Amino acid sequence: MSTQSAIKPVLPAGIRDYLPGDMIPRQKMLDTIRKTFESFGFNPLDTPGLEREEVLTGGDPSFKMQIFRARLRDGEEDLALRFDLTVPLARVVATYQSDLDRPFKRYQVGKVWRGEKPQAGRFREFVQFDADIVGSARTMADAEIIALMYQTMVALGFSRFVIKVNNRKLLNGLAGYVGFSQEQIPTVLRLIDKLDRLGWDNIAGELADMVGLTVEQLASLKRFLDLREDSVDRLLSSLNDLMGNAEEASSGIRELSEIRDHLSALGVPSENWEIDLSVARGLGYYTGPVFETILTDLPSIGSVFSGGRFDGLVARFGAASMPATGASIGVDRLFSAMEKLSLLPKQATLTQVLVLNFSTECEKRCQELATQLRLGGINTEIYLGKEVTLAGQIAYAVRQSVPAVLIMGGNELASGTCQVKDMATRSQAEVSFDQVGIRVSEILSR
Amino acid sequence: MSTQSAIKPVLPAGIRDYLPGDMIPRQKMLDTIRKTFESFGFNPLDTPGLEREEVLTGGDPSFKMQIFRARLRDGEEDLALRFDLTVPLARVVATYQSDLDRPFKRYQVGKVWRGEKPQAGRFREFVQFDADIVGSARTMADAEIIALMYQTMVALGFSRFVIKVNNRKLLNGLAGYVGFSQEQIPTVLRLIDKLDRLGWDNIAGELADMVGLTVEQLASLKRFLDLREDSVDRLLSSLNDLMGNAEEASSGIRELSEIRDHLSALGVPSENWEIDLSVARGLGYYTGPVFETILTDLPSIGSVFSGGRFDGLVARFGAASMPATGASIGVDRLFSAMEKLSLLPKQATLTQVLVLNFSTECEKRCQELATQLRLGGINTEIYLGKEVTLAGQIAYAVRQSVPAVLIMGGNELASGTCQVKDMATRSQAEVSFDQVGIRVSEILSR
Repeated sequence: MSTQSAIKPVLPAGIRDYLPGDMIPRQKMLDTIRKTFESFGFNPLDTPGLEREEVLTGGDPSFKMQIFRARLRDGEEDLALRFDLTVPLARVVATYQSDLDRPFKRYQVGKVWRGEKPQAGRFREFVQFDADIVGSARTMADAEIIALMYQTMVALGFSRFVIKVNNRKLLNGLAGYVGFSQEQIPTVLRLIDKLDRLGWDNIAGELADMVGLTVEQLASLKRFLDLREDSVDRLLSSLNDLMGNAEEASSGIRELSEIRDHLSALGVPSENWEIDLSVARGLGYYTGPVFETILTDLPSIGSVFSGGRFDGLVARFGAASMPATGASIGVDRLFSAMEKLSLLPKQATLTQVLVLNFSTECEKRCQELATQLRLGGINTEIYLGKEVTLAGQIAYAVRQSVPAVLIMGGNELASGTCQVKDMATRSQAEVSFDQVGIRVSEILSR
Repeated sequence: MSTQSAIKPVLPAGIRDYLPGDMIPRQKMLDTIRKTFESFGFNPLDTPGLEREEVLTGGDPSFKMQIFRARLRDGEEDLALRFDLTVPLARVVATYQSDLDRPFKRYQVGKVWRGEKPQAGRFREFVQFDADIVGSARTMADAEIIALMYQTMVALGFSRFVIKVNNRKLLNGLAGYVGFSQEQIPTVLRLIDKLDRLGWDNIAGELADMVGLTVEQLASLKRFLDLREDSVDRLLSSLNDLMGNAEEASSGIRELSEIRDHLSALGVPSENWEIDLSVARGLGYYTGPVFETILTDLPSIGSVFSGGRFDGLVARFGAASMPATGASIGVDRLFSAMEKLSLLPKQATLTQVLVLNFSTECEKRCQELATQLRLGGINTEIYLGKEVTLAGQIAYAVRQSVPAVLIMGGNELASGTCQVKDMATRSQAEVSFDQVGIRVSEILSR
């Protein structure tokens, strides 16, 4: 039965592995994010990768995103792979309405899948790391999210970045200000979202074609998008002059001004955040403030940490409407950026000691020693490969950059000692069996 | 266009969420496993959830496991969700043959999916935590895996468990010893694997029907499966008498005897492991020693930590054959067991301090204080909910079991102080702004 022709060991397009040399710094990165999120009072949540398809699409027949549908051989429920962690959060809030205390502050890290065209820096499977506050309508909650974004970026080692803040209410207010219909808002926002990538001329062309904006309307839209002042205060004041008489826009301006005050109290420096009226965010569910994070030295990769307020999402599931705000790190994109900016010290192995293993008579002693070191919290590998010579095994330790090596031969066995080699200095010392842990710790602490 | 009837917020069958009350102890569990695996010199690897379907099935038309296939709307490659982390490891070893140094010791934690019939304790999406050594044919490597299993179980707080060890070579040797054909081995093993659940009488009936074993053959098989002695040494000796003259069985016996010696040197107590000749392990890829872990107080849930040697798996991908051994924790099953055995201290939140927030004039001060505490490494939540009274916010802290609460009102604001309340003793002290961190640390360290 076995028609065993070899299977090609290749990955699907747009999907990647993380070998240990990448995973070690990536795990440190994830640990740092987790610690920072916890410091803001967020607790962990986990939801499945597979959800019922209509949970993800909202049963929307015009749902645009390419998602992966998942099927068992015999069919059954219509399942799909989640494309973000925000929709599942809304589902969780609706599922456990009575069990979850509010405000519900949760973080979640996990893989998500999107059927995007594979290209540099865009993956079909990638990890998101999200923090959200559900059940608070206050701008203090939005400001907490922005402060979290700031502190996380700093903890990861970034100094040159800007968190761009806008408000969907201003963008919705554009309908009245520029003069187009409410129904056209999503189209206009989708085009504004492409401004950075395509430039104004292309956008303007499409706005004329698709929305029917006149030259005057385009000019007034551009006046809004180009609004720049040398301080947030002055910008808010100009904005108020421009569209403050419309109710929704005025509420959006007030929210931005409150956020400004909160960010100051939360210690977010003014050079690390700004109001950018062209920030729209692609996803349809945002209702208020929106945020994105641009790396000053790598602006072209786009936002690495984004979010906003999504007060309407929980209502999709028939639950009472529930205010919510949060943000999400694109872990793989941010990891690539950190690599490019040399913010991730390379490390080939977490192993701290290699116990060489070239003499059967010493084998038992090597195993006892390794056990003792491991129980003392030192990451210890017993050499298990094919090299039978001292030189061959040392070469393995060098390739792996293991900091310390233990050597035991017949002489050492007889005298109850062990050679401890510091691989950085290549110095070697003979120490008694019960002193090995101390000597190794000295080497590791340098 | 929006035909927005409410979407039911329910999960697919056999799939679960982890709310914070479960995720906090679960994350501690995962941290403990990771730390123990790293202490043995394993490094992290990550591979995608989505793989090409033939990578997972080996292109085997008789592939039995129910896997989830994943498709984009417009079709494309045939993809599927991984059902374990072992096949993807073999694919990685084949993909990066020349880049990976050997022995390659990696651990990996991640979700896997199987279309099994949903039932108590069986999930369709669950997490595995694996450690494997690729590139070592030595029994020392198998013993390292068993020692890792032992130390991990101890680190998780278990004392009453038994790691059962067997060798596929003995089971393969049964064909000659009992007298059936090589082709019937998989069927016999599949039935033996069900022995614990179905009992001998049912197994014997099926062995007679499906394999055609005679009464004498069944008796000789039962003699093998029932072989029990009061020590591993005596068992190995009896086994040698029974089938030591057959080449494959004899090699299996020698391996078990080497493993016994290694486990002694690696400090695995004899009460925590045994040779059990009825252990077969379901998966087809095992070739040598196999392991499983049974909880003495919950034997009915089956093995929580299992594995074995799988020397042939990498060759599926056309690479040179590569020895490999390892084991996998069924995280969700083990988590359920730990809950049942009260090995997981419940914890509703990781938040250590709640800063109450009921007076607009103090808001700014509360935010500054929270920022100061967070940067000092204390998990701090500013109250952002609807309760506007002291009592209402204190009640939230009580429900969440937050250990400390900070209270600031007009008096405190004027004098630059803050009330710090220890929620365990309900005692409260007024401290100056810059002493808050110290006072909170005192409360937390008790």
